[in-house]
Amino acid sequence: MLKRLNHVAIAVTDLESATANYRDTLGARVSEPQALPEHGVTVVFVELDNTKIELLEPLGEGSPIAAFLEKNPSGGLHHVCYEVEDILAARDQLKAKGARVLGDGEPKTGAHGKPVLFLHPKDFNGTLVELEQI
Amino acid sequence: MLKRLNHVAIAVTDLESATANYRDTLGARVSEPQALPEHGVTVVFVELDNTKIELLEPLGEGSPIAAFLEKNPSGGLHHVCYEVEDILAARDQLKAKGARVLGDGEPKTGAHGKPVLFLHPKDFNGTLVELEQI
Repeated sequence: MLKRLNHVAIAVTDLESATANYRDTLGARVSEPQALPEHGVTVVFVELDNTKIELLEPLGEGSPIAAFLEKNPSGGLHHVCYEVEDILAARDQLKAKGARVLGDGEPKTGAHGKPVLFLHPKDFNGTLVELEQI
Repeated sequence: MLKRLNHVAIAVTDLESATANYRDTLGARVSEPQALPEHGVTVVFVELDNTKIELLEPLGEGSPIAAFLEKNPSGGLHHVCYEVEDILAARDQLKAKGARVLGDGEPKTGAHGKPVLFLHPKDFNGTLVELEQI
């Protein structure tokens, strides 16, 4: 079912400083910041040779990463996103195996404009898993 | 400086159950478990199309992931490993930028037999970063 690792998301409190870390200290290619108000984050993409890191800063009220940053005020690894070919088939297979899909179980349009689902961290070794249809 | 994402490491308390999650529930290719007593972990590799996930279970006394699992008893995202071409040049550049290298600052032989260094999470947005020379 799993294909590529689409991205690793790192939640940060200060996107400018985090971007400088990756661009200037680690010497990576980084994008301009993109505000995604419908997702409650501003994102910078760190482009690696085989995948990307997404640096996420909260945007607006009720950001989905606000609670994480309250618990982890330095920031930290927030989730991993795996690509699948068919998100509805993936969801049905996961539910049949007893894994919990977050929300109402229907795919939403993710930050890249593709259908995504999030899986319950307690079912995946304490790791928040996003699935994205490619 | 950064090339590929070599792996994402997930610390787990029960490697067999974590492996079953990835193999049976998420439908990924997984390796046999490999005991690495000199690194204090047993590891299973989850092979994705562009990179890999390493599931780490503590092995023996003083495992480097034991404290993390005490704080995160469900397990969780532990570190990311980026590839660099020249680890000594990378280290010197990082130190010149004020980033802290863990331990005595000399590369050690990592779990793949290559020279590695770990960087202080407080300098990288709460994320433990491993660099591996390719």
